[in-house]
Parts: sequence; structure tokens; C-alpha cells
Amino acid sequence: MAGKKHQVAVIGSGNWGSTIGKILSENTAEHPDLFHKEVRMWVFEEDITVPEDSPHRSKYGDKPQKLTEVINATHENVKYLPGIKLPDNLRATPDIGEAVKDASILVFNLPHQFIGKTLEQMKGKYLPYARGISCIKGVEVEDGVVTLYSELIMEKLGIYCGALSGANIAPEVAAERLCETTIGYDPPPMDLTSHDGSPKDNLVKVDEQRQDKTKPSSIKLHPMPQDYPHVDAELLENLFERPYFFVHVVKDVAGVALGGALKNIIALAAGFVTGKQWGENTKAALIRLGVQEMILFGRTWFPKSVNEATFTEESAGIGDLVASASGGRNFRSACHAVEQGVSVSEIEEKEMNGQKLQGVSTARSVYKFLEKHNKTEDFPLFSAVYHILEGNAEVDDLPNLLNKKKK
Amino acid sequence: MAGKKHQVAVIGSGNWGSTIGKILSENTAEHPDLFHKEVRMWVFEEDITVPEDSPHRSKYGDKPQKLTEVINATHENVKYLPGIKLPDNLRATPDIGEAVKDASILVFNLPHQFIGKTLEQMKGKYLPYARGISCIKGVEVEDGVVTLYSELIMEKLGIYCGALSGANIAPEVAAERLCETTIGYDPPPMDLTSHDGSPKDNLVKVDEQRQDKTKPSSIKLHPMPQDYPHVDAELLENLFERPYFFVHVVKDVAGVALGGALKNIIALAAGFVTGKQWGENTKAALIRLGVQEMILFGRTWFPKSVNEATFTEESAGIGDLVASASGGRNFRSACHAVEQGVSVSEIEEKEMNGQKLQGVSTARSVYKFLEKHNKTEDFPLFSAVYHILEGNAEVDDLPNLLNKKKK
Repeated sequence: MAGKKHQVAVIGSGNWGSTIGKILSENTAEHPDLFHKEVRMWVFEEDITVPEDSPHRSKYGDKPQKLTEVINATHENVKYLPGIKLPDNLRATPDIGEAVKDASILVFNLPHQFIGKTLEQMKGKYLPYARGISCIKGVEVEDGVVTLYSELIMEKLGIYCGALSGANIAPEVAAERLCETTIGYDPPPMDLTSHDGSPKDNLVKVDEQRQDKTKPSSIKLHPMPQDYPHVDAELLENLFERPYFFVHVVKDVAGVALGGALKNIIALAAGFVTGKQWGENTKAALIRLGVQEMILFGRTWFPKSVNEATFTEESAGIGDLVASASGGRNFRSACHAVEQGVSVSEIEEKEMNGQKLQGVSTARSVYKFLEKHNKTEDFPLFSAVYHILEGNAEVDDLPNLLNKKKK
Repeated sequence: MAGKKHQVAVIGSGNWGSTIGKILSENTAEHPDLFHKEVRMWVFEEDITVPEDSPHRSKYGDKPQKLTEVINATHENVKYLPGIKLPDNLRATPDIGEAVKDASILVFNLPHQFIGKTLEQMKGKYLPYARGISCIKGVEVEDGVVTLYSELIMEKLGIYCGALSGANIAPEVAAERLCETTIGYDPPPMDLTSHDGSPKDNLVKVDEQRQDKTKPSSIKLHPMPQDYPHVDAELLENLFERPYFFVHVVKDVAGVALGGALKNIIALAAGFVTGKQWGENTKAALIRLGVQEMILFGRTWFPKSVNEATFTEESAGIGDLVASASGGRNFRSACHAVEQGVSVSEIEEKEMNGQKLQGVSTARSVYKFLEKHNKTEDFPLFSAVYHILEGNAEVDDLPNLLNKKKK
């Protein structure tokens, strides 16, 4: 069974992509039996000026530089993750073909709006039997359908893809502050049987919302040659776990992805009541009610794949929710809106230079989704947040809006 | 089936006792079919001086007054819950016999150190078939045995007793800010069968830790006469739920009580890492790991009665924990200790006039308990908090101490 080692590639190099690149490179260096030491990081190339307060400024001055060249020379992503030393064995490349060539493990970590185009550019350049892990937060909700980014990757590339999510604010992870994450990974059983390596129709779990849709219920997946170390929970732990970054691998990919999306709605609610100074009791109640709605959402639309414990016991569920409802941007903006007596959109304008909050778009798209499925009444908290954002309800109405459910 | 109504009594009148008295009286007035309107509140009588900033000061001046008389005249507990109007149908009495006479529902809400003596004083004065609800937070841990206050009440009085706990900081509940609570209530099935009213041996759920102990595995319980409205989840909701106070009734009494005790240990841990400014990721990780240890604790010592969901989905579990790990006294004191580079005991001295923190005594008694049962290694977070409090470990050791579990 000796033979090959896994080549690992990270697709994306923002602050979270660079942080994950750091973790992966630390681990490939520690497990030479499983992985090639070098990790390749695909960087969307840009001309940058090294910031004035960077220790590398004296070397480069104010002359524009290729970001990849600076990363490889300084071992620091001076633009997106300044001040963090990246391992020498993490190599940046602007060429997606070079990044994914021979890579048997592809870790996707880029803004969701770039994923479609990037997958397009990968066509014909990656190993057809590679395995993917998507670190892209959240899900897409449109036209009454929820799509996981891991599903999108599976469909576009024909490779199996899991998901990673948790209470992982990138700069804190990069600074090696203790935290946790969850990986959802549950490939069809083809891995365990021997075969000729040709692509097969493999049933990928398909849930209720898809049954009347055009989405394929199965995709052709190539088995990975058996001379690679088996890609299972233990191997993923070896690749992602650090002494400061605890990893738990579960089978529920949908739950991991949903947690990262739905928590933003609840973070807004927590911000609203904190702005009102209603205290910790109320915030705790909203977090608890929010978890109940996450569970119901998962059970209703992903009944075959979602496990309730992903929401109640994993970093991708309750962990990420608690962190986001105490310190994230959605929480803070909702809190400021109430304190100043203005709408959340006004805060987006005033304090965020018009940048849009993830929670606001998620609250809207989830409410439209629930409306389409005639289920808004079963989700009083998600609905209440939408109505408060839209100006149809006040924060003071929350006790009444939430009490409906109980009568 | 017509006939009797329930007479309700509250034993205790601190800020939480008075708040619960307020809630009960609001509800007995709204449900005249089920309850006598008047709710009696037993008050540990004391001579008080009405505070200078009280609107009632002009009436009483600085002359000492009986607390019960002031409560009944002003409908305000000017000493323990100032500024909150109590319903007219809540009547304070210093006489425990008068308070519990004819009361078919006894709500215990007093500091745990007074419970033993108070139960003693009740002997021969209460209805033998009354039902109890204990609002006393936490559990007693001593000599390798965990005792729930509801159990203590059952044993001393021979009545069935449930428990109420949740994210319920008394002044916030009294101010009618939205929050939730959990009631654990699971009487043996005697209620449902007809009988002659004589006391019977009724099996009360007894768990593993008791098997080699002298504690009774069953106690004699009197059935309640059938002309009372049946005391079930619905009746308890009618008695405790308000538009601003959501109630969920579950069967797991032990889980409800354990949550209120163990959360204090985790709140200290959350305070430690907040003092270090490790950020929300780390705090969320400790909360999640803490819930896992709560579950394991419950499963190990209360396998017959504990339901995991009490910790992960109820206000008495995750709700109370999240609130306590963000704003309670244990959290703040641990945070200040780290910020100032002193021990938690020094904070108790300096900032709390020598008052002791619940979390510190719970962390110690739980650790001694785990040691006695040879289980400290299975509870790395509870153990780490103990060792940090004792000065055997530093907060910086947390990643290592917690990582042990995974190896």
C-alpha cells in the first residue's frame, strides 16, 4: 500500500485563505508520510504596494509589486494577513493550473462571488479523483432552493467535496488563539471498494427541496487510486488540526454549511436586543430560539443529511453562533442601529462605506425562501428579523412575534 | 371533576423569590378556574429601614419596619426588589405555617443555605400531597454524591418536587424583559390512577451514584386528590408563563438542576480567556466544550434521568450558560483577575467584600467529586478551571490542558 502522498492546494488567499494555507503547511511538514511538504496557494494576482507600516516596506518602497512574488519572498501576505509569518513551504502561485496540478486535496477558500469563475478556470487542469473541502462560509439561497458551495463544486468539477466551518475569525486563528472548527465530510462508499478507476454514477445525498428540481440526484465520481493514503476523518484531522485549532469531523455537510449562513440572522437579532439594553437573558433566549429554527430548517429541507447535533454541539453550529452573536459585524451593526435609532441600511452606509452585511442579505433571501415554501410562520425569529430590517416591525414587538409560535 | 383550586405559596422572598411571586400572582389572577387568586409569600422576617431613595421613604421615615408589613402595605419589596410593583394579590407572611397551609403548590425560592432549616419548620404544617417546584439554583456536591435540592425537598417533606432554572437574572425578569426558563417535572405515574389517598411507595428515579449509598431509592408519596386540576406541564405553563417569560416543561429534573450548577465553572473559564483578550472564537470553543462536559457529567451520574437535550437545547442548559459566560459575576470576576494579574480569591476580597463566588465553590466541589470517582481526565475543562483557581496552572496552559482529551 506504499506509494503516493497527497499534494495539497488552497484555492484563495484572503485572510482566511492565507490562514488555512498556514495551517495546512504546518501540518504537511509534520506528516511527511501522508503529504508532500509543499502546499500551493492560488492567489488572484494583483499589483500591490507594500503598506507603509510593514517591516518589508524598506525592501520594496512604494513601487507596485506582484502579490504572489511578495508572498513568496517575504512569507507574509502583506496585504490580506499582515504581521503573520507564513511557513516557507507554502508557495503562492497566480496560475490556477499550476496550483491544482497533481493536487489530490483541494481546499477552496475564496469569496463566494468568485467561486463560479474560478471553477470554470480549473476545467481540465485538476485531478479528476481529487477530494475537495470548501471553507466558503454559508450557502446560496435563491428561487426557493438552497445550494451548498460544496454541492456547487461537486457538480461543476465532478469531485467529492466536504465543508469546513466554525467560530473562526481569521486574524484570531492566524494569531494561534485557541479555537475549534467542524469539517463535514461524507463521501459515498466507493472509496472502500476496488475498481478500475473509471468514473461511476455515485449517489450523492439529495434532499427534499431538490426532488422537483433539475439538479442531478447523482454525479459521476472518480474513485481515488488506492496507493494514496485514504482520505478519511483521521487524515483530515492530520491535515487541519493544530495545537491551537481543534478539529471535529462529522458526516453532516449540509448542517455545517447551513450553520454558517443562518447564524448571521440570529446575530442581527442579538444585536437588536443588545442595542435596547435588554440584557444577557434576552440574548441567550434568542440564541436558543435561533438554534431551534436552525434545526427545523435543516430537518425540513435536508432531512436525509442534517443531524441536529451539528447545530447544538458543533463549532459550526452553536460555537459559531455564540461568537457571532457577541462580536461579529452583523451583531455590532444591528446594535448600533438600535442605539442610534436608525435602520441597519443606514449603518451600512454610515459605518461600512456602503459594504453590505452578510446577515441582511441572508435574512432577506431566507425569508423569501420561507415565503415560497409557505413556512414563514414556523420560523418566527427568522421572520421577525426580516420584518424589523424591512421596517414592518419594531424591536419592541419581538416578545409578541416570538410568542405566536407557542399559541 | 369540578371542585378544588390550587393554593399557591412561594417560600422565600429575595429578589428572585419576589420576582417569581410577582409572576405567580399575575397568573393566578388570570386563571381563576385553576388557582386561588391570592398567592402567599413566606418572608424571613426582618426589621428594615426603607431606603432613602425609595418613594415610600416619606411615609415611613427612618423608623425600623417589619419587612412583611412594608411589602403588604406598599406592594413592593423595598429591600430586595426595589422599584418593582408587586401584584396586590401577592401577600407576604412571616409565618411559614400560614404560608403553606392548604397550599397544594409550593414554590421554593430561597438561598440554599436556608433550605434545611426551613424544611424543618414546615413539618406538620403543609399538605402531604402538595407538589413542589424548586427554583434554588444548582446542586449540592459533597462526599462523592450530587444532591439536587428537589431531591432534598422530596426526602424531607415526602412530596414530589420538580425544578425551575434558566437564564433568569432576577432584576431583568422583574423588569419584564423577554426571557425563557425551563421546568423539570416528572412525577411518578401515581397521579394518573385512582386510589384511596394513602401514602404509597413510589419509585423516584435514582441514579448510579446513589446505588451504594444510604439514600432511599423510593419515597412514600401521597397522591393528590382528584378534585384538584391535574398538575401537569400545561398547568405549570399556566402558572409560570408570562408574555415576557417563556416556559418550557421537560421531564429531566436532574439536567435542569445540573445545568444551573455546572455553568458557573464554564463562566469562569470564559472570564479567564476574555481577560486574556483571546476573543470570541476562544470563548465560543470553551462554551461548546463545556456543554460536552455537562452532557458527560449528566450521562455518567444520572444515566436514568438526564436527557442530553436539556443541556444543548434548553434555557436551563445552553441558555443559562451563554448568559452567565457573558455577563455574570463569575465571568466578570475571572476576567478582572486575569486583567489585573491576581487570583480570583483576591478579586473576591477586593471587589466583593469577601463574598464568595458560586463558581469557585462549584469548581472545587465538582473537582473533588471527580477525583473521588477517578474521572478528572474525562473532564479536562472542569479540571483546568480548578487547577487555574488553585494556582497549579496558568490560563496560557488551556490549549494544552484541553488538548489532552483528544490524544
